[in-house]
Amino acid sequence: MTGSNPLVRDRDVDFLLYEVHNVLDLCKLPAFAEHGRETFDLFLRSAAKLARDSLFPLFREMDEQPARLVDGRVHEHPKMGELYARMVELGIVTAGRPEEVGGAQLPSCITSMAYLYLMAGNGGAVGYPLLTAGAGHLIESFGSDALRELFLERMYGGSWSGTMALTEPQAGSSLGDITTSASPIEGREDVYRIKGNKIFISGGDHQFLDNIVHLTLARRVGDPAGVKGISLFAVPRMRPVAGAPEQLEFNDVHTSQLVHKIGWKGLASLGLSYGENEDCRGWLVGKPCQGLRYMFQMMNEARLLVGANATATASAAYHESLAYARVRTQGRRLDRRTGADSSGPVALIEHPDVRRMLLRQKAIVEGSMSLIVASARYADLAEHHEDPARREQARLLLDMLTPVTKSFAAERGFESTSLALQIHGGYGYSSEYLPELWMREQRLNSIHEGTTAIHSLDLLGRKVVAKGGQALMTLAGVIGADIQAAHQHGELVELCEAVTHELERTGKLTQVLGARGLGGDVIGMLAHSVDYLTLFSNLVVAWQWLRIAGASCKALQGPLADERRAYYQAKVEAARYWIRTELADNARLAKLCESAEDSYLKVPDAGW
Amino acid sequence: MTGSNPLVRDRDVDFLLYEVHNVLDLCKLPAFAEHGRETFDLFLRSAAKLARDSLFPLFREMDEQPARLVDGRVHEHPKMGELYARMVELGIVTAGRPEEVGGAQLPSCITSMAYLYLMAGNGGAVGYPLLTAGAGHLIESFGSDALRELFLERMYGGSWSGTMALTEPQAGSSLGDITTSASPIEGREDVYRIKGNKIFISGGDHQFLDNIVHLTLARRVGDPAGVKGISLFAVPRMRPVAGAPEQLEFNDVHTSQLVHKIGWKGLASLGLSYGENEDCRGWLVGKPCQGLRYMFQMMNEARLLVGANATATASAAYHESLAYARVRTQGRRLDRRTGADSSGPVALIEHPDVRRMLLRQKAIVEGSMSLIVASARYADLAEHHEDPARREQARLLLDMLTPVTKSFAAERGFESTSLALQIHGGYGYSSEYLPELWMREQRLNSIHEGTTAIHSLDLLGRKVVAKGGQALMTLAGVIGADIQAAHQHGELVELCEAVTHELERTGKLTQVLGARGLGGDVIGMLAHSVDYLTLFSNLVVAWQWLRIAGASCKALQGPLADERRAYYQAKVEAARYWIRTELADNARLAKLCESAEDSYLKVPDAGW
Repeated sequence: MTGSNPLVRDRDVDFLLYEVHNVLDLCKLPAFAEHGRETFDLFLRSAAKLARDSLFPLFREMDEQPARLVDGRVHEHPKMGELYARMVELGIVTAGRPEEVGGAQLPSCITSMAYLYLMAGNGGAVGYPLLTAGAGHLIESFGSDALRELFLERMYGGSWSGTMALTEPQAGSSLGDITTSASPIEGREDVYRIKGNKIFISGGDHQFLDNIVHLTLARRVGDPAGVKGISLFAVPRMRPVAGAPEQLEFNDVHTSQLVHKIGWKGLASLGLSYGENEDCRGWLVGKPCQGLRYMFQMMNEARLLVGANATATASAAYHESLAYARVRTQGRRLDRRTGADSSGPVALIEHPDVRRMLLRQKAIVEGSMSLIVASARYADLAEHHEDPARREQARLLLDMLTPVTKSFAAERGFESTSLALQIHGGYGYSSEYLPELWMREQRLNSIHEGTTAIHSLDLLGRKVVAKGGQALMTLAGVIGADIQAAHQHGELVELCEAVTHELERTGKLTQVLGARGLGGDVIGMLAHSVDYLTLFSNLVVAWQWLRIAGASCKALQGPLADERRAYYQAKVEAARYWIRTELADNARLAKLCESAEDSYLKVPDAGW
Repeated sequence: MTGSNPLVRDRDVDFLLYEVHNVLDLCKLPAFAEHGRETFDLFLRSAAKLARDSLFPLFREMDEQPARLVDGRVHEHPKMGELYARMVELGIVTAGRPEEVGGAQLPSCITSMAYLYLMAGNGGAVGYPLLTAGAGHLIESFGSDALRELFLERMYGGSWSGTMALTEPQAGSSLGDITTSASPIEGREDVYRIKGNKIFISGGDHQFLDNIVHLTLARRVGDPAGVKGISLFAVPRMRPVAGAPEQLEFNDVHTSQLVHKIGWKGLASLGLSYGENEDCRGWLVGKPCQGLRYMFQMMNEARLLVGANATATASAAYHESLAYARVRTQGRRLDRRTGADSSGPVALIEHPDVRRMLLRQKAIVEGSMSLIVASARYADLAEHHEDPARREQARLLLDMLTPVTKSFAAERGFESTSLALQIHGGYGYSSEYLPELWMREQRLNSIHEGTTAIHSLDLLGRKVVAKGGQALMTLAGVIGADIQAAHQHGELVELCEAVTHELERTGKLTQVLGARGLGGDVIGMLAHSVDYLTLFSNLVVAWQWLRIAGASCKALQGPLADERRAYYQAKVEAARYWIRTELADNARLAKLCESAEDSYLKVPDAGW
C-alpha cells in the first residue's frame, strides 16, 4: 500500500497554487520577479521526489529505532545525517531566504507546499532543517553582522543546525515565568554567562553535524520579571575558540534528558542544561529585553509549520485509507444487505459511512492545504508587496489566520487521521499498518508551539479585535469578495448564502464579545475562546472551500476529460459537505460563546 | 500521580447504584432475594481493591512487555497467571451466573460496576476472565449436558479459559462471508472436523492455564451461504482423549500469527489456524445453523463490556488529569493575564479551558457509567422479572441501548481520553505519563465488537424501528417519566424542557426515516446512520444526566456537609453542560439525517 501513497497529491498542489490562489501573480512583485511556474514546479517536484523516495521509506524505521541517549549524547537514527544532507542539497534551509544570504528567494506559498511533501514523508526528519531555518532567520533578522558571520553562514550552509529553546520544566506554556539567567562577563559586551534548564528542545542534540546553535530565551540578571525582561541569545553547543574561531570548544551545554515521545521519534526532544560548570556563553541577539518579540518571528513561522505538519500527516493518512477503501472488499451494498447475497462483497468505498469518513478527511485535508496557501500568500505580500498599505493589510490577515491555520489543522487533522485508522478496521489498530503511527504523530500538533487553548486566546483576545476590529473587517471584505465571485455559479448559490450568513453571525458575535472585554468582563469574553476558535475556523475553511468550488465550477464550464471532470465535481461535493455539515455547527457554537455558558466555571472545587 | 488515582470513584458507583438507579429494588426479585447492599458492596470493594492493588500496578509494565510469539506459542506477561487466579478467586468469571453452576447470582448492575474497576486498572488482563465468562455462558445457555460437563465446569472453575472466534481475515465485520468449515466425522453426531482461519482472537493462546476453548463460528459442509448457514462449535486447543477424558491431546489448533496491536498488549490477539493436519475437532453447540443467533448472546454481552471498558479507560484518564490539573501550576488567572503578575502561577484547574476539558470528561465518563447501569438494569429485568410483559419491555430497551452504550462510550470516551492527554501538555505526549497509553487502549473500542458504523445501522435499521416503533415509544415513555420527576426541581426546568424538545425531535425524525425505509429508500434512511447514532446517544446521555441531576437536587434539599454539597452541585453543573453544549448539537444532526445530505454519495469514483 505505502509504495503507492502519493503523500500529497501533485494535482492538488497545482490546483491550489495556480487555479485557486493564482500564486503566479506574486511573480509581478520585484522580490519574485526571477521566478515563474518553471522554477516553482522544479522545486516542488524535487521536494515530492525526496519525500517519496528518501524520507517516507525511513518513516516507520525511524519510529521503531528512535534516538537513544548514550553517555549524555543523543544518537539519532544512522540515516539521519544522509537525509539532512539531501534536504540541504534540495535547499530547504534557505529556500525562502533572499539571494544575498544564499537563498532561493521563493515565495512562502511555494516553500510551504514543498514542506508539506517532506512532512508527509517524515515529519520528524524534516524538523531538523526547518528548525535550523527558523533559528537562522532569527539571527538574520535581528543579529549583528558579527553574529551572522559567527553562526549564520554555517547554519544556512548546512554544516551546523539550530533549535528554538523556550520552554522550561516549571513554566510550560507560560514564558513569562522562565528562570534561565544571563550574567554579564567582564569585558564582553554582547556575550553572557548562561545558566538554566530547558525542556522539549527538538533537535537539541545529534551526531550528524559538528554544532548546534540554540536560540535561547533567558533573563539578564537585574532585568524585569515577566515577559518584558526576556532576551534572546544564541547559545552554541560548541563555541568558537577566542582568537581561533575555526576551532570549537565545548560550551557547557548538556543533554540532561531524552523525552520519550509517542511520535516524531526521528526528531529527539530533550532537556538541556546550560552552565553546569559555569562556563556556558550566550551571544545576545539584537537588543536586550526584546527576546520574546524577536522569538515571535520564529514562533509564528513554527506555528504555520505545525499547521503544515498536521495537514501533511492527515494527507498521507487520507491517501492511505482511500487506497485501502478501494481495494479491501467487505460486506454487501447497503441496499442489498440482508440474506445470502450472490453479488458478493463490495469494496469498502461502496459503503456510505466509509465515504462519509473519506469525504470528511478530504474536506479537512484539502481545506487545510488551501488555508496554508492563503496564509503563506499573505506572508509573501506582507513582506514583499511594494505598497505599504497592502503590506499592512496582509500582515493583519496573516496574524489573524496564523492561530487558525495552526489549530484547525491540528485539531481536525487529528480527527481526520483517526478516521483513516477507523477505515482500516481491526488492521488499523495494528502497527503493521501506518495509520496508527500517523495518529501518534498527529497528536502532538495541538500541543506544541502553543496549545489550542492558547491559540484561541490569541485569536479572540488579540487578533480579531486588533486595531479596533479592523483586522476582522478586512477579512470580512476579502471573504465577501470571494463569495461574490462564487455566487455567479448557479450551483454554489446555496453555499454562498450559508457562508454569508455565518460571516455575519461571526461579525456580530465578535462585536458582542469584544464589547464585553472592553467593559472589563474578560471571563465573559474569553471563557468560550476554544468554541470561538472552532467557529471561526469552520468559517475560514468554508471560505477556502468556496474558493475551491468556484475555481472548480469555472473549470467545469470548459471541455474536460471525464477523469478531470470527476476531479472538479468531487471538489464541489467536498465544499457542499463542509458547509452543510461542519459550518452548520456554528449556530450552536455562537450561542455558547454569546451566552457565556458557565457550567464549568461553576463546578465547586470540592465537587469534581 | 498514579498511586492516588482511584480509577473509578467509589462514591460515584454508590451514588449511581443506590441514589440514581435504586438497584436495591432488584433484590425484590426472587433471583436476587439473597442479595442486598452488604453483598453488593463486598463484591464491589473487593473488585476495587484488586484493581488498585494488583491490576493497575502492572498496567504500564504489561504494555512495555507485551506477549511474544515463541515457537508458535504465545508467551504472555509472566504475572498474568497470578492475576488470572486472583480474578477467579474474586469470582468474576461466574459473578453473574446462577448458583446452580457455581455463580454468585449477582445482578448485572453490580457485576458491570465491578468490571469497571477492573478494566480501569488493566483492561487487557481482565479480558481473559471476561472472555471465559462469555464463552462459558454460551455453553451454559445452548450446550447439551454432555458439553457442559466436558467444558463448562473447568471454564467456570478457572482452570480453562475461553474465547470467541468469529472474525476471519477475508471477511472482517461481514460474518456472513466466513469460510471456516465443519465436516462430519463418521459415527460422531455432534463432533465435526474443523478447518479454517480466524483473526483478532483475543486471549487465543497463553501459557497460564492448561486449555483454551474457542467458541467458533463455522459452516457445516452443505449448509447455506450467508449468515443462515453458520453454526457454533466449541473447539478446544487441547481435547479430552476419547475414553480417558481427564487426559488431553492436541486438537490441531495453531497460533498462526500475533497481531501487533497498539494497545491492550496484556491480552494477545492472534490468528488461529484450525485443522492444518485435518485433525481438529469441534463440538457442535446447540442446533446447527443457529450459530449466529447463539453468538449474539456473547456479542451483546461483549458490546456492553466494550462500553464498560471505554468508560473505565476514560474514567482512569479523567481522574489522572484532574489530579494533575490540581497540582501543576502554570500561567496566570485569565482576568490577570497581562504583564508581570506578582500573584504567581496558578493551578491548571484555574484556567477556564482546562475546566471545560475536565467537565467534558466528567460528563462523558459519568454519563457513560450511568448508561451502563441503566442497560445492566434492563438486562437484569429482562432475565429475571416475574412478569413476562416487563421482561419483554426490558429486553426491547436493552436491545436498543446496547449499540448506544457501546458506541457512545467508545467514540466520546476516545475524545475524553485525548483531553486528559491535552491537559498534561507536552508531558502528555510522553510515555512517562499514562494518558498516552489510555489513548492507545481506548482507540480499539470503536472498532472491536462491531464498528461504530455497524452499530449505527443496528440502531437505526433494526432497533429503533423494532415492532413497528414500539421499542422507541417505550423508551420515550420511560424518558418522559424521568423528565417529569426532574421537573419538580425548579433549577432543572430549563434542562427538562430542552430534553423534552429533543425527545420529540428524535421521535419525529425516526418516523420520517422509518417511513423512508419502508418505502424502499434504504439509502435515504440509513446514509446518515452515524449522525443518527450520535443524535440518539446525545439524547440518551442527556436523559441519564437529568436523572443524575434529579437525584442530586433531591439530596441537596437535605442538610449536607460542604464537601457533600459540592459533590451534588457539580453533578447539576455537568448535567447543564451536557444538555446545553452537547445535546444542543441535535438540531444540526437531525437536519443532516432528514435532508439525507448526499455530498459523500455523489463524489464521482474517479474524483476522490
